[in-house]
Amino acid sequence: MLEKLKEDVYQANMQLPALDLVTFTWGNVSGIDREKGLFVIKPSGVTYNELKAEDMVVVNLEGEVVEGDLKPSSDTPTHTVLYNEIPEIGGIVHTHSPWAVSFAQAQMKVPALGTTHADTFYGDVPVTDPLTKEEIEERYEENTGKVISRTFKQDKIDPQAVPAVLVSQHGPFTWGKTAEEAVHNAKVLEVCAEMAYHTLMLTHNDRHVSQYLLDKHYYRKHGKNAYYGQK
Amino acid sequence: MLEKLKEDVYQANMQLPALDLVTFTWGNVSGIDREKGLFVIKPSGVTYNELKAEDMVVVNLEGEVVEGDLKPSSDTPTHTVLYNEIPEIGGIVHTHSPWAVSFAQAQMKVPALGTTHADTFYGDVPVTDPLTKEEIEERYEENTGKVISRTFKQDKIDPQAVPAVLVSQHGPFTWGKTAEEAVHNAKVLEVCAEMAYHTLMLTHNDRHVSQYLLDKHYYRKHGKNAYYGQK
Amino acid sequence: MLEKLKEDVYQANMQLPALDLVTFTWGNVSGIDREKGLFVIKPSGVTYNELKAEDMVVVNLEGEVVEGDLKPSSDTPTHTVLYNEIPEIGGIVHTHSPWAVSFAQAQMKVPALGTTHADTFYGDVPVTDPLTKEEIEERYEENTGKVISRTFKQDKIDPQAVPAVLVSQHGPFTWGKTAEEAVHNAKVLEVCAEMAYHTLMLTHNDRHVSQYLLDKHYYRKHGKNAYYGQK
Amino acid sequence: MLEKLKEDVYQANMQLPALDLVTFTWGNVSGIDREKGLFVIKPSGVTYNELKAEDMVVVNLEGEVVEGDLKPSSDTPTHTVLYNEIPEIGGIVHTHSPWAVSFAQAQMKVPALGTTHADTFYGDVPVTDPLTKEEIEERYEENTGKVISRTFKQDKIDPQAVPAVLVSQHGPFTWGKTAEEAVHNAKVLEVCAEMAYHTLMLTHNDRHVSQYLLDKHYYRKHGKNAYYGQK
Repeated sequence: MLEKLKEDVYQANMQLPALDLVTFTWGNVSGIDREKGLFVIKPSGVTYNELKAEDMVVVNLEGEVVEGDLKPSSDTPTHTVLYNEIPEIGGIVHTHSPWAVSFAQAQMKVPALGTTHADTFYGDVPVTDPLTKEEIEERYEENTGKVISRTFKQDKIDPQAVPAVLVSQHGPFTWGKTAEEAVHNAKVLEVCAEMAYHTLMLTHNDRHVSQYLLDKHYYRKHGKNAYYGQK
Repeated sequence: MLEKLKEDVYQANMQLPALDLVTFTWGNVSGIDREKGLFVIKPSGVTYNELKAEDMVVVNLEGEVVEGDLKPSSDTPTHTVLYNEIPEIGGIVHTHSPWAVSFAQAQMKVPALGTTHADTFYGDVPVTDPLTKEEIEERYEENTGKVISRTFKQDKIDPQAVPAVLVSQHGPFTWGKTAEEAVHNAKVLEVCAEMAYHTLMLTHNDRHVSQYLLDKHYYRKHGKNAYYGQK
Repeated sequence: MLEKLKEDVYQANMQLPALDLVTFTWGNVSGIDREKGLFVIKPSGVTYNELKAEDMVVVNLEGEVVEGDLKPSSDTPTHTVLYNEIPEIGGIVHTHSPWAVSFAQAQMKVPALGTTHADTFYGDVPVTDPLTKEEIEERYEENTGKVISRTFKQDKIDPQAVPAVLVSQHGPFTWGKTAEEAVHNAKVLEVCAEMAYHTLMLTHNDRHVSQYLLDKHYYRKHGKNAYYGQK
Repeated sequence: MLEKLKEDVYQANMQLPALDLVTFTWGNVSGIDREKGLFVIKPSGVTYNELKAEDMVVVNLEGEVVEGDLKPSSDTPTHTVLYNEIPEIGGIVHTHSPWAVSFAQAQMKVPALGTTHADTFYGDVPVTDPLTKEEIEERYEENTGKVISRTFKQDKIDPQAVPAVLVSQHGPFTWGKTAEEAVHNAKVLEVCAEMAYHTLMLTHNDRHVSQYLLDKHYYRKHGKNAYYGQK
């Protein structure tokens, strides 16, 4: 069942340690088959060097396991909410990558300070409000998905144009058209957070990119007038 | 004698360089057989690429060498105190990992600022008081164990719930149910210290996690209602 | 056509990941044959582990592709301007290396604070003015080359003596007599930016090198009285 | 001639890249045969992956090349002064390792803030005064050796007890009983500088170790009452 997708999601999961985005088992990737309404996700707590493509767990959009011998990632309800709320996305990543987590713990956005950021994220990467006591005690992981969705609606951010968020005091979630693209965005976020940190330490002035520099770099790589790469 | 434990402790010691937790020989791991009342520890000053399982030294709970051709780690009296004071633990690690040492040198706790920390440590990782001149000049390593124990009692911290400490101006000790778990906790401490440092630099506000977020993440992985992983 | 130069430029491109100067495809190297008036550059968006010497694209000094099945780097117009403006150079590198980008985002020069810097750069590495809205919206990459050239003229800096620049809010360009030397200079810039950052954090005093220390180290490695190395 | 020493010095040089202490060719190691009054040093500007034991150059205590086809390190006159001034040492290392250079550029000592430092350095690692214009323009490398020697005499520091120095605005020199020990000390200095930097950023209080903690750790590893390791 969904063997090709399982292989893709397995490969995307294995990119997390290869790109230095995870310590131990602190990360997970999923990918969805929109026609079937099923997504495939890493099993919970399995170490990367023991992981196999056939370990991937198949889950439906109600968050129920449809196939798999192992328990899915404990973050599965967050993925379920995001797939339901953002119909355009095909893959989701969660990590505890250290630079992104540092901003999440500080409850600060990753500001758009340069073209590296603008090439991938059309504006600041937002940080959610903290979850309330009630939201944490009951249906915590589901509420994590909901606070992400709420953040984008409140701040009127298009989740396709800014495919990343910091969950307050927790860490980053990123997404993309595929699981592979979601992993790419997770790495870009980590590098941009690292560079934003050092920029903020060097200067106390606001160094946000202008709207026209943001437009230039974002649309250089996205949309119908993109001209970066071979396509 | 204790061949299986020696192999486990050897493997746990070899994880220290693999996880980037040691420079040269600046670290040691021990593991205990509680039934026999004997623990196994790395020999002093032996480099990791020359270390063998049979080099491990067997020590009793009075700190006396029971078997082994090599001298045990100079920190053996610290391990001895900790095994006597905390009967539930099965393994201990000491390193000079740089982020944890930086906090120890600053004589600052590693504050619980996010879910990465809360998943493993149920609250701030404490720093001990400095040892007095007398405590340093006589039975220094034994007194290091005692000041750790005293810190947990004074501050009413359960050493099973917070399996790590910073010895003032020195560095981290961590522990766990096994030597392997103690090494895991040493790595988590290092990563949490790194992220706490950057968070503290980004913001001057107190960003401690709430009690309910701490509860949620700690008990997600610990105790009878844990639901992370495959068990 | 230009097979030897393609091989050299390919090898220089492959040095970027080897020297930890690029994430994904965020970098490009070119090299020029001055007699033929043609330069060779990396194709746009091709990953380094798939890159081959024969993929290199040949471009003339009007910026037109002369040979090659792939599209050249989107930064090709910047390279074209620089080859026209600085006739002495034989190779150009662009990266998003994180320390240099941090200074570019802060819109700060990399100051000459020590002999490591002075060995390669005869003074501060300048940062350009930001491009205007008009310069960004039309002929952006060409205008990037022009603002670099303008910066060196305005500040009366010899681009052979300081073979590097930070484009404001973007990142570094470096150059040299060959593509290989340009890559060398890109790495030196990254290391000098890293050390300048930490120096600036440690002290609020101006620690620029004196003119005579700058002279000593620069001319130890450059010009007719150089005495470093085997030549 | 001195084949065993050449091999030892070659191996010590190769440890510099293995321990992440050099970029390109920015470092050199020498070792001396005190009976013969000759030392062996890396040739100038040769890359580490092309270096061979037979490339090592033999130099006498007047700084004259006695054997070797290649030019010795441009820092040879500094090594010569140090071997003459400190008769007890058997090996010398110079690097541009980034954390030590950051302190050298800030013209700040590496303060003794913890036991990691005290295990190797019996007090702060000093920084020299800047060289004067005259000292830089004539016999620069020789004067570098002299300012190091002067610093230890002025500040009444025993160069055997503190086998390291930062040359102002330049970088570290370390030494030891052998070339291998000098490399060891270069790595310890780099790690201690990294940890001191982060400690200084975390706290504005003076966190120097007490005299008795310094004594305890230094003499745990040095002198006739040392008890660390297998000897």
